[in-house]
Amino acid sequence: MKVAFINPFIIATITTFDMMLKVKLLPGKPEIKSQPYPSFDISGIIGLSGDAIGSVVLSYPKIVALKAVSKFIGTEIKIIGPDVTDAIGELTNIVAGSAKADLQGLNVSISLPSVIMGRNHQISNPSGLESLIIPFNSEIGKINLEVCLKTK
Amino acid sequence: MKVAFINPFIIATITTFDMMLKVKLLPGKPEIKSQPYPSFDISGIIGLSGDAIGSVVLSYPKIVALKAVSKFIGTEIKIIGPDVTDAIGELTNIVAGSAKADLQGLNVSISLPSVIMGRNHQISNPSGLESLIIPFNSEIGKINLEVCLKTK
Repeated sequence: MKVAFINPFIIATITTFDMMLKVKLLPGKPEIKSQPYPSFDISGIIGLSGDAIGSVVLSYPKIVALKAVSKFIGTEIKIIGPDVTDAIGELTNIVAGSAKADLQGLNVSISLPSVIMGRNHQISNPSGLESLIIPFNSEIGKINLEVCLKTK
Repeated sequence: MKVAFINPFIIATITTFDMMLKVKLLPGKPEIKSQPYPSFDISGIIGLSGDAIGSVVLSYPKIVALKAVSKFIGTEIKIIGPDVTDAIGELTNIVAGSAKADLQGLNVSISLPSVIMGRNHQISNPSGLESLIIPFNSEIGKINLEVCLKTK
């Protein structure tokens, strides 16, 4: 996967969390996602299609998801419910929408976000396609960005 | 969600399992997916975008996924591994690709499939959007089709 295609997702994640949550994300070293790769407890996923096809995932430990959503909607949320899954989905949507605008030369459209919940869930991409994990650390905890993108 | 938009997914699922696996699927009564709704152990998910946006999920109990994949690739598979997740993803891809061709009047493109594994995982869609579950029964066991589709 070209650096030119992964950077927009990293920048979009940092910018979205900064603007929407006032949370500064510190990106760690991107690594190739081995399969199977354990996700955190809650993951927002959105599909990409068009000149490039793939998926974007933002995965959170439960406690981090609750903190992120509380900051996003401006009310402290302590229990996972539809408001949390909606907000986690919407954050994924904003990140993917922002990133696709910066995929220079590629016309990409995004699907609706889905939110996966479950301890020890794993999300696999088609083998043979490179998928990258970008770990972020922050004052509210760890978040992983996963990007799988195949240009046509 | 219009019946005209859900039927292509039901027909594509039945046809794909018949042609690729020689398995006859018997569709049950479609129901509106309440949130949260527990999926089976392994789910293939693919995003839809274009004139309609949404997602398609095919969810299997582990034992059913192993039987389906064994029939799909023509070799008995007893352990979940990359060959299983690839095959579950590919079946989702075939169903979505076949269905989109029959969404009359809608130009829809599909993303890459992702495969979610984990007991008791749940997949939520944005609340306010109708998502349908179509249960299927067969000689190899139960499979659920989930379709969430929003026309623009």
